[in-house]
Amino acid sequence: MEIFVAKSSGFCFGVKRAINLANKCASETQGAIYTLGPIIHNPQVVKKLEESHIFAKKGIDEITQGTIIIRSHGAKLDELRAAKEKGLNVIDATCPFVKKAQDLVSHLSDEGYSVVVVGEKDHPEVKGLISYGSAEIRIADSPEGLQDLPRKKKIGIIAQTTLPMEKLEAVVSFCLNKASELKVFNTICNATSIRQKESGELAEMVDCMVIVGGRNSANTRRLAEICRGIQPRTYHIEVADELAPEWFRGASRVGVTSGASTPDWVINDVVERLKALESK
Amino acid sequence: MEIFVAKSSGFCFGVKRAINLANKCASETQGAIYTLGPIIHNPQVVKKLEESHIFAKKGIDEITQGTIIIRSHGAKLDELRAAKEKGLNVIDATCPFVKKAQDLVSHLSDEGYSVVVVGEKDHPEVKGLISYGSAEIRIADSPEGLQDLPRKKKIGIIAQTTLPMEKLEAVVSFCLNKASELKVFNTICNATSIRQKESGELAEMVDCMVIVGGRNSANTRRLAEICRGIQPRTYHIEVADELAPEWFRGASRVGVTSGASTPDWVINDVVERLKALESK
Repeated sequence: MEIFVAKSSGFCFGVKRAINLANKCASETQGAIYTLGPIIHNPQVVKKLEESHIFAKKGIDEITQGTIIIRSHGAKLDELRAAKEKGLNVIDATCPFVKKAQDLVSHLSDEGYSVVVVGEKDHPEVKGLISYGSAEIRIADSPEGLQDLPRKKKIGIIAQTTLPMEKLEAVVSFCLNKASELKVFNTICNATSIRQKESGELAEMVDCMVIVGGRNSANTRRLAEICRGIQPRTYHIEVADELAPEWFRGASRVGVTSGASTPDWVINDVVERLKALESK
Repeated sequence: MEIFVAKSSGFCFGVKRAINLANKCASETQGAIYTLGPIIHNPQVVKKLEESHIFAKKGIDEITQGTIIIRSHGAKLDELRAAKEKGLNVIDATCPFVKKAQDLVSHLSDEGYSVVVVGEKDHPEVKGLISYGSAEIRIADSPEGLQDLPRKKKIGIIAQTTLPMEKLEAVVSFCLNKASELKVFNTICNATSIRQKESGELAEMVDCMVIVGGRNSANTRRLAEICRGIQPRTYHIEVADELAPEWFRGASRVGVTSGASTPDWVINDVVERLKALESK
């Protein structure tokens, strides 16, 4: 059984930066350190950070003092304001690509565009993004979600950074019929599209695909969805322990890929376990 | 044999306006009157105007004095300048929708966008449009024509007013991958899209379609293309004389539609001839 690991798997730039900032903070800070929500969507990493006394809290209300790390997905504007009002020490680990998208939402709103954020309503990045715009901002990850959008003079569009390109294209095409002027910022992170493209190509050449990453990670789930559409024998796992030998029966080539928030050590564990299966 | 005429057939707003301006000019002007190219893409109308002493000239070089009518498709900026320099009396019959698109090309160029005009390279409207932008402007009616487009900071897109929506959508989707910022003006004239939609719907319910209009009219040819895709028994004619009885053998329902530059009297001739066929 040959094992192929996607070149683009492992932490993306933004996640790597957030984890580095958190580790640096842990080594330099005496008091309590919190993250607003899990710093990245990977339970194994969040657990590891707890060993360094960095704890994920659900909301800003639960934090009264100490240091707060804004996770890679960013935060809502009112959360940032509340943190400042409380006098918390704020470490901003928002991914620079997300930061850019936040600025663009604000810019489009200021310029009078009706803003559409192409993304998932419940994703923390999207919740953060919309807080930078006017109240009327719309969220949709497909034209179906915009059927009731009235005709507008001008529509401004940005995308959740981890969105597949086709979703942005579909919404842009739809909005062309809803306004005579569109301003579109393609804020989809290049790392995401490269990863999706490469994983899809890998799925085409193997007999079985393993996707490694948090079940709460939208970009990992999306990778699994893409690969499953190409290779039905696709399995989404968080850790090596979940691998079942029967999945690989008769498979001569196995592909491994991971979401942007999956650390190398988790991926290496999976590869080692696959090698062990092979030698059995 | 039942005959159905598309409600949207006949002159569009811009063509009607151009013909009215030409007729008004003929009744008020003593000297020579010229149009820069045929005033609209319909040989029958152009012939009729010759009876009112309005003559189509190929280029501005052929005109030294008198009145010049700028046709509904608009003119190139250097042609307008030359007309003024020659002291010609200029009657501007450019369709207001085309005028708007010309202004937008100029606006996008001024704002530093790399401009893409989605349209047909050889169409007079497009030749006029690009003269309002910078030298680097690109023309394409599909992504294939933009394969060599280098990555740009920001791309501005406008469309030939008579283009099918799908062509604009395809180029916009393509350009999303070529720049992080797009500004798109949907300059496709509503009359064109309504006409295309309605003609397609008509083609679905009949046994035979007749498209009436100039063979040199891009929007008429496009209607024929759309209808033929739905109903293979589609015939593009300029005048009633071309109708052949064998086309309608066994047909119980016939649809008639026309381009934006086809006058009502030509359409009425066709309908009368069809009725005569039926009674035979």
